[in-house]
Amino acid sequence: MDKILVTGGLGFIGSHTVVELQEAGYEVVIIDDLSNSSEKVLDGITAITGKTPIFEKIDLKEKTDVEAFFKKHNNVKGVIHFAASKAVGESVNEPLLYYENNIGTLVYLLKELKKLPEASFIFSSSCTVYGQADELPITESAPVKQAESPYGNTKQIGEEIIRDTCKVVPTLKAIALRYFNPIGAHASTEIGELPIGVPQNLVPFITQTAIGIREQLSVFGDDYPTPDGTCIRDYIHVVDLAKAHVVALERLLSNKNKAAYETFNLGTGKGSSVLEVVNAFERVSGEKLNYKIVGRREGDIISAYADTNKAKNELGWETKLSLDDAMLSAWKWEQKVRGK
Amino acid sequence: MDKILVTGGLGFIGSHTVVELQEAGYEVVIIDDLSNSSEKVLDGITAITGKTPIFEKIDLKEKTDVEAFFKKHNNVKGVIHFAASKAVGESVNEPLLYYENNIGTLVYLLKELKKLPEASFIFSSSCTVYGQADELPITESAPVKQAESPYGNTKQIGEEIIRDTCKVVPTLKAIALRYFNPIGAHASTEIGELPIGVPQNLVPFITQTAIGIREQLSVFGDDYPTPDGTCIRDYIHVVDLAKAHVVALERLLSNKNKAAYETFNLGTGKGSSVLEVVNAFERVSGEKLNYKIVGRREGDIISAYADTNKAKNELGWETKLSLDDAMLSAWKWEQKVRGK
Repeated sequence: MDKILVTGGLGFIGSHTVVELQEAGYEVVIIDDLSNSSEKVLDGITAITGKTPIFEKIDLKEKTDVEAFFKKHNNVKGVIHFAASKAVGESVNEPLLYYENNIGTLVYLLKELKKLPEASFIFSSSCTVYGQADELPITESAPVKQAESPYGNTKQIGEEIIRDTCKVVPTLKAIALRYFNPIGAHASTEIGELPIGVPQNLVPFITQTAIGIREQLSVFGDDYPTPDGTCIRDYIHVVDLAKAHVVALERLLSNKNKAAYETFNLGTGKGSSVLEVVNAFERVSGEKLNYKIVGRREGDIISAYADTNKAKNELGWETKLSLDDAMLSAWKWEQKVRGK
Repeated sequence: MDKILVTGGLGFIGSHTVVELQEAGYEVVIIDDLSNSSEKVLDGITAITGKTPIFEKIDLKEKTDVEAFFKKHNNVKGVIHFAASKAVGESVNEPLLYYENNIGTLVYLLKELKKLPEASFIFSSSCTVYGQADELPITESAPVKQAESPYGNTKQIGEEIIRDTCKVVPTLKAIALRYFNPIGAHASTEIGELPIGVPQNLVPFITQTAIGIREQLSVFGDDYPTPDGTCIRDYIHVVDLAKAHVVALERLLSNKNKAAYETFNLGTGKGSSVLEVVNAFERVSGEKLNYKIVGRREGDIISAYADTNKAKNELGWETKLSLDDAMLSAWKWEQKVRGK
């Protein structure tokens, strides 16, 4: 079976994708620099799949290490590139870190892939490229907006670099997957999200509050022009998201792609407000969540959810798990991590 | 006098700027990798100014060499960053080369500048960021258009990286100078443009044709909606352009800048058509140019020229030399280079 490199394969989405790849029979090699993950995630992957992926601790910023990796693993057929810095707020304060981590490393990887006889490349992009879209749901042809943060900008630039490269490298095919809001954990509770420090995202903040690590969840604004006044996002179960990567990879490896470079939204197609997510959590967990409505947070867009038709029609993929499934798995994971 | 680092200081615009900096009394250190320039340019600079700048042959893609440079020259007060790949056509065929050369190196430089107690940074940007502007002349507030080439994209991205960095690094101030079309050579004929291979730009192609190296100049399209049907650009004498860098640097060093990051157009404000440039050449040289009208070239915009008011009002700078001055100097330089 084909050997697939997964960069950032010990991270949240990366680890779930490694599980799905191994279950589909692929041989997986993980590169991770452990800057925002732990080697223990390998144990979780092994517990679920019965197989330990190859793991190489490499910092993709070190060009010579990347070159050496591809000399050693010269039969890699595809790369799923998760490794990147991903905190919007941090990116504002440390822009150079983001441009180096997210752009420099992508260029090094693509330079190596260019040398291979054939290569399939999947890129972790984000719905952040759309900003506040003029029309909802958001289709892949919606205009890319001026990025609000260096993080968002690196996703836009990353897509442009891949697009420009695919135009002139006939042996390279790529898909950029624009994630909406990934949440949840593997049903086995062997792997899940492991935020370092204060969580940047809603769901880990909810579960950490419920378990007693955070005192209170702040809900930023209830006066937005939405049904309940809170912001709306498209929360997608990470296991659904992970499966989409396998489908996208299969599309490239079997030459079913219609162009050398394609983009797909990965979302449920359904928007949920912050309060709906809180309610779902309370419903599935039986816990009462301590939250408080506070003022709006700068830079938050009002509403974003995916038009999922392209992924359905072209990839033959759609989400199967519900918001309740995701909240329950996130809660079980939080309890397991905290030994409760 | 302050020590100024000029990257790409042996290139076309770089070398002319080094001359102006030395004549203004600055101590200049040049970094150049000689990939598109020659060490002999140092002789030309010395002949004009009576002073040889310090020269370090460094490839800015080598992060450790950049770090070592700043350890050695720890009293650099300002950086003028010319070093970059600049051929639009090549960038389409070799996008990764452009993203690495033009973006990666910029990030390394800024990371070093962040460590200095204070730093002034001048960035070589381009009118290409405007694409085909909706209004002429083009002001600095005209919207930046989706780039037509990886080269153009690296200039846009470069500006964004600097903007994002200046927002959070209070010791760093920067100006992006958006060049229109630099032409001509130093009046001394000691330095000038030295294109490698077939010239990508109009004026060196004209002078090489006149001197007998190229058979014929192709004028791409005479059916554009312009007075004579050929494309219009804003050709600026490289000596005027070089002087603008000294003025911009002075603005930053003396804290006259109004924001941490600013952009300025550098142009004459006057558009000239391809045929007007050909006519100017014939007029000042007394030579008849062999040229032929051929079909339009893909990707050429119709017309672009600068609104120069911001540079006039804020920098107190405007061009002094004419199109004829520039064409005559370019012709004298071509004759000297060819030993005629």
